[in-house]
Amino acid sequence: MNRLFNFSAGPAALPTEVLEIAQSEMLDWHGKGLSIMEMSHRSAEFVSVAEGAEQDLRDLMNISDDYAVMFLQGGATSQFGMVPMNLSQGGKVSYINTGVWSKKAIKEAKRFADVSIAASTESSNFCEAPLQSDLSIDSTANYLHYTTNETIGGVQFDYIPDAGDVPLVADMSSDILSAPVDVSRFGLIYAGAQKNIGPAGLTVVIARKDLLGNPLSTAPTMYDYAVHAAEGSMHNTPPTLAWYLSGLVFQWIKRQGGLSAMAELNHRKASKLYAAIDASDFFANPVAVRNRSIMNVPFTLADSALDKAFLTESEEAGLLNLKGHRSVGGMRASIYNAVPEAAVDALIDFMADFEKRRG
Amino acid sequence: MNRLFNFSAGPAALPTEVLEIAQSEMLDWHGKGLSIMEMSHRSAEFVSVAEGAEQDLRDLMNISDDYAVMFLQGGATSQFGMVPMNLSQGGKVSYINTGVWSKKAIKEAKRFADVSIAASTESSNFCEAPLQSDLSIDSTANYLHYTTNETIGGVQFDYIPDAGDVPLVADMSSDILSAPVDVSRFGLIYAGAQKNIGPAGLTVVIARKDLLGNPLSTAPTMYDYAVHAAEGSMHNTPPTLAWYLSGLVFQWIKRQGGLSAMAELNHRKASKLYAAIDASDFFANPVAVRNRSIMNVPFTLADSALDKAFLTESEEAGLLNLKGHRSVGGMRASIYNAVPEAAVDALIDFMADFEKRRG
Repeated sequence: MNRLFNFSAGPAALPTEVLEIAQSEMLDWHGKGLSIMEMSHRSAEFVSVAEGAEQDLRDLMNISDDYAVMFLQGGATSQFGMVPMNLSQGGKVSYINTGVWSKKAIKEAKRFADVSIAASTESSNFCEAPLQSDLSIDSTANYLHYTTNETIGGVQFDYIPDAGDVPLVADMSSDILSAPVDVSRFGLIYAGAQKNIGPAGLTVVIARKDLLGNPLSTAPTMYDYAVHAAEGSMHNTPPTLAWYLSGLVFQWIKRQGGLSAMAELNHRKASKLYAAIDASDFFANPVAVRNRSIMNVPFTLADSALDKAFLTESEEAGLLNLKGHRSVGGMRASIYNAVPEAAVDALIDFMADFEKRRG
Repeated sequence: MNRLFNFSAGPAALPTEVLEIAQSEMLDWHGKGLSIMEMSHRSAEFVSVAEGAEQDLRDLMNISDDYAVMFLQGGATSQFGMVPMNLSQGGKVSYINTGVWSKKAIKEAKRFADVSIAASTESSNFCEAPLQSDLSIDSTANYLHYTTNETIGGVQFDYIPDAGDVPLVADMSSDILSAPVDVSRFGLIYAGAQKNIGPAGLTVVIARKDLLGNPLSTAPTMYDYAVHAAEGSMHNTPPTLAWYLSGLVFQWIKRQGGLSAMAELNHRKASKLYAAIDASDFFANPVAVRNRSIMNVPFTLADSALDKAFLTESEEAGLLNLKGHRSVGGMRASIYNAVPEAAVDALIDFMADFEKRRG
C-alpha cells in the first residue's frame, strides 16, 4: 500500500484511518456476517449507524433540536433547485454572488423564484467576498443565500452575514466541518459530502424545522424537505454506504478534538502555504487576504508556460491533483480536513525546489 | 471473517468476490496512491472506471447506441417523479398496477400527468400480473409504465407488454440483470442499484435518446434526463464509489457467463425453493405460478404464531434477513444474483428441519 498526498478538490482525500476501518469491516460488519452495504436501511444495525452519525454531526456542530438533519442524495447541485422549491414560496429571494458556485445556485433559483442580488464581487473578478456593509438585503425576501467558500476561486467568507429576520441559507459544501460555526445563525445549511464529510453521493442538509413544509406544488415529492425530515431521511432507501462512511469521518473528527482542533490545524496548514506563496514572486494568489480560503488554495506561476512541468513533477513527487479547475487553469491545492499537515509541508518544499530549479 | 447467507430484499447481498476486490483496492486503487473514492470524477482514472462500467452494462444487456445509459442518484423513488416530468408532456400516461411499488409510481405520476390504469390486479390481492389480453392501453398515452417485479409481493411479469407505439417504461429495480431482456422493446428502463447492481445510492436509467429533451418547465434541472445524458452523468459529481462498485458487479456477472448464465442459475434457485414450499402444507406462497418471482420469494407458515421462532432460529442458523416486508408480514427470501445456490439449499434444509420439529 502506497498512500500519496492528495490535493483533490473533490471527491477528495479521506482520512486513512477511516478507510482502514471501512476496509477491515467491508465483508463482515461487526461480526454480523455481512457488509454494512448489504443490510436493509431499516435493520437495527444500520439504523444504529445512521442515528449515530446524525448524533455525532449534531455534537460536532452543536446543532439544536430546532433543526432537522437530513442525509440526502443529489449533491449541492440538487440543492440549487431544492432550496427555492421549498423556501421561496415562489416569491422573492436574495443571493450573494461570489463565484462559480454562487452563479450556479442563482441560475437555478431564477427558474423558481424572483431573485435579487444582495451583492456581487464579479466586477473584482471574484477575488473577494463582499463586506457586510456591501449587502443590500431585501427584508421581504424569503431567504438570503450565500456560498461560504467558493471551491474554485478559493474565496471564503470571514464572517456570517447578518440578514436580520431573513433566513440565511448557506452552501457549505467545501468548508463544512473545517471550523466551528454558529448553526443558530442559519435557516438552512447544505453540503455535498465529497470534501469534508465522506464519499460523493451524499448531501447533508441542516434545516430549521419551522421553515419546512411549504414546497411549491410542482416540486417532486423527493424535493420536499419535510418528507425527508419526517421520515428520518428514509422516505426511500438512503445511500447507506456513504452514510456509514460519513459517520466514520465524524467519529474521526471527534477523535482529532472536534472542530476547534480542526480549525487550528486548518489555519496552520493554510497560513504556511499562503506564506510560501507570498514569499516569492514566482507564485501568486489573487484573493484578498481576508477572504483567502483555508480549504482551497489556488495559485499561479509567474510564467504559466511552466504549469505543465509543475504538475508533472509534483505528481512524480507524490503530490497529486494540484491542477487548477478547468475553468481557471493554474494550480489549486485543496487542503481539507483529511489532508495532513505533512502534505502541505511536502508541497511547500516542492514549490521551493521547483522555483530554485526553474525560477 | 464470517460471511453468512443474506436474503435481504435490499440493500442486498453483493458478490463476496466483488467486496474482496473493493477491499483490496480501498486505500490504494491500482497503485495510484489513493482510493477510487478520493479521485475527481473527471480524472482519467475515474473516467476509465465509469466508461468501463457503462460499456460492461451495455454488453450485458445488449443496449444499442439508440439508448442513453445514465448513472444517477435518488433511487427508483426519484424516478417515480422524473419519468412523468420528462415523458408525459403533462398529458396522458398509462400505468399497470401490480402492487406496492406500482402504486407508489402511480401516486407520484398523478401529480404531474393524466394517469389511466391499463390494468390492476388489486382485486385479486396482487397475487398475479395481468395478461396481455387484460391490458387497456390508451394509444394516445405518452407512455405505459409497469413494474417488472414487485419486490414485496414477489410478483414478476412473465412477458413484456406489447404497447404498440406507446413507449414502454419499466421499473426493473428488483430484477434487472437477473435474465436477458430485449431492451429494444422499451422506451425507458430504470433500476435502483441496491438489489442486483451495487450499493444503494445509485440509480441506472436506460432511455431511448429520441424520447428525451422535453421535460416539464417546472422540473428542476437535475430532473432533466437530457442534461444528464448530454454530460455523461457528470452534470454534477456522480456517486463515484457506488458507480465503481457497480462496475465491479458488472464484471463479476460477465465472469459468471453473462445474463443467460445468471438466468439459468436464478431459475434453478427459485424452482427448488418454490418446490420446497409447494411440497408441504406447512409453507405457502400465494402468487400465481406463472408470475412467481425468481428474485423475491415470500412465503407464510400455516401457523403464523411460529413466524417469530422461524425468524429467530433461521438467523441462528446463519440465514439472515428472512423477515417479510413490514407491510405484509410472514417471510421473504430475496435470492438475487449474488445469493449463491448454497444459500437456497441451506434455507430449504432449514425449512424441512423446522417443519419436522415444529410442524
